[in-house]
Amino acid sequence: MTRARRPSTALRSPCPIAGSLDLIGDRWTLLVVRDLFWGKTRYGEFLASPEGIPTNILAERLERLETAGLVRSEPYQRHPPRHAYHLTAKGRDLQPVLGALVKWGKRHVPGTMTRDELAAG
Amino acid sequence: MTRARRPSTALRSPCPIAGSLDLIGDRWTLLVVRDLFWGKTRYGEFLASPEGIPTNILAERLERLETAGLVRSEPYQRHPPRHAYHLTAKGRDLQPVLGALVKWGKRHVPGTMTRDELAAG
Repeated sequence: MTRARRPSTALRSPCPIAGSLDLIGDRWTLLVVRDLFWGKTRYGEFLASPEGIPTNILAERLERLETAGLVRSEPYQRHPPRHAYHLTAKGRDLQPVLGALVKWGKRHVPGTMTRDELAAG
Repeated sequence: MTRARRPSTALRSPCPIAGSLDLIGDRWTLLVVRDLFWGKTRYGEFLASPEGIPTNILAERLERLETAGLVRSEPYQRHPPRHAYHLTAKGRDLQPVLGALVKWGKRHVPGTMTRDELAAG
């Protein structure tokens, strides 16, 4: 996995919302970030989440998140090579974004509930 | 424009983050919502934003937002027909999501700044 940071020379505009969405504005990235907040670290764990992220999308998103400095990876097995993924401080700073999406979704998307509510039955 | 609500029977999971992202998880939708918060109401105003949203994407997103009940439209001209768009309460409830993205972007995406900061030079 590359450690290089992608330079931010291709901003669509100076708007920080646009700049954020260039990194995390899609249907999957923030679900991977959510899984990382829940303590998931391995490929198989992300794939097991109920949304059923496709393997190629998962691989691309993890690489993009690492390139952008939101995630770091470390090898935990050599043969075959396997990596564990963790949020960096930059990634953890997305917590308020996830919190706001949880609140909005619970209020406005019928049929949604948080993990704690699901666990409580 | 249809007023029908799309039923939420096709949720990827019960997760409110996933449910929210199904509606607003892309690079453009929240920029249109931002523009609506700024008081923009007309096609030409959205198209004039610095990110340069393509017209077909703008049309699709406005229709999707209206179908989902985040936006309402009203005709302001008959020949040719033109509509003005406004956020509903459901759409305005996205303010904390936008606020969290502004904060994260300003902190972590080099080169971004808020409209007030740009105006202040």
